[in-house]
Amino acid sequence: MAMQMWELAGAEADRLFSPYCWRIRMALAHKGLKAETLPWRFTDTEKIAFSGQGLVPVLQDGDQVVHDSWAIAEHLEGKYPAKPLFDSAQAKSLAFVFKTWVETTIHGPIFRAMVLDVFNAIHEKDKAYFRQSREKRVGMTLEQFGSDPKKGVADLRTALLPARKQLVQEPYVCGKAPGFADYILFGAFQWARALSPQRLLEPDDPVFAWREKMLDLHGGLARKAKGYEVWT
Amino acid sequence: MAMQMWELAGAEADRLFSPYCWRIRMALAHKGLKAETLPWRFTDTEKIAFSGQGLVPVLQDGDQVVHDSWAIAEHLEGKYPAKPLFDSAQAKSLAFVFKTWVETTIHGPIFRAMVLDVFNAIHEKDKAYFRQSREKRVGMTLEQFGSDPKKGVADLRTALLPARKQLVQEPYVCGKAPGFADYILFGAFQWARALSPQRLLEPDDPVFAWREKMLDLHGGLARKAKGYEVWT
Repeated sequence: MAMQMWELAGAEADRLFSPYCWRIRMALAHKGLKAETLPWRFTDTEKIAFSGQGLVPVLQDGDQVVHDSWAIAEHLEGKYPAKPLFDSAQAKSLAFVFKTWVETTIHGPIFRAMVLDVFNAIHEKDKAYFRQSREKRVGMTLEQFGSDPKKGVADLRTALLPARKQLVQEPYVCGKAPGFADYILFGAFQWARALSPQRLLEPDDPVFAWREKMLDLHGGLARKAKGYEVWT
Repeated sequence: MAMQMWELAGAEADRLFSPYCWRIRMALAHKGLKAETLPWRFTDTEKIAFSGQGLVPVLQDGDQVVHDSWAIAEHLEGKYPAKPLFDSAQAKSLAFVFKTWVETTIHGPIFRAMVLDVFNAIHEKDKAYFRQSREKRVGMTLEQFGSDPKKGVADLRTALLPARKQLVQEPYVCGKAPGFADYILFGAFQWARALSPQRLLEPDDPVFAWREKMLDLHGGLARKAKGYEVWT
């Protein structure tokens, strides 16, 4: 039986934008695996209640149900060890450090830059939930939080330095070939690409050239996905 | 012939405080190698001119001279591959990302917290150079920059989150055993320990427990070094 994955979608069912789901879309392709996408919205809590929690991605793999992008990566690595996402135990530990770095340092500025684009792109039925939960999280209205997108872009470019210095010397975050840490960082850019026409990177940025390579990986999976092309 | 390493020292020759040198002290011990320490001060530029630049650590290994802590780690890994610092190519790439993260996110708050302690501890002949170069770098006087050490400590604790989340689940940054990424982060704490009596971490912080383990590694090399014990 083919795998199935619940993935966050916008107003259109094929506007897949969760950075966490994109990690797994890329990881599945990395391993040559396929999963049917089941579009999911923030308020579809009952649809994934069987997973015991309320967030996507949720992967159904035979009789196994796995949620949380890191747990899914571990599941895939254990069950389908060919074409590994981590090439050693130390690499996996350092990818976990990298994951928290991306989530605390990279996601924030991107969200600030595009929060109003996100609000516009999500499904109508999600808007009240999104506004309420995110305004509570950031402590102000979405309009206030999103009033200076250029600051978000500038902060992002500064925050990317640890990745940028690596990408000057090797083609991928993980070295000569992409690994899960690449998919973690790339998920943040696919989130932006799906929802916002804003230019996050300049073409002379080594991170830009890396993102181009990531868009082309696995038959252009990410480039073919619904999103904005202004920055490609 | 034994290796020799030029290492940054304070007023006392055995107050070794460079975070970059500490990476290599720990890496040498990790591999069971020894190097004679040659104390060096900021203004001893002529003493290491043979290395073609003006910063320590500089390692003399037979007829090979290597400078820059990352280049020295690569040199050691290539020439003495037993007891590796990196357990795979991906781990090495991710450790390089981690290195820039430490240097841009962790060193800054520590320096802000203890800049006046640093100034007090360095050699008299270094003080004019240190004041001038650091005041130019931070754009204010040392006294202004160091006027709120508690903010430095608070910023450090926030910035440590990516390491902290890893250290909740595994004993070391690199997993079950320490690797070069551990030495990179630990170097920042040894820099502080050598120079400042300030308490950077609370005992209930998982990073505190990790630092204790690091102090005990390799026969207690780091704990035996000259420094303050208020936080141990």
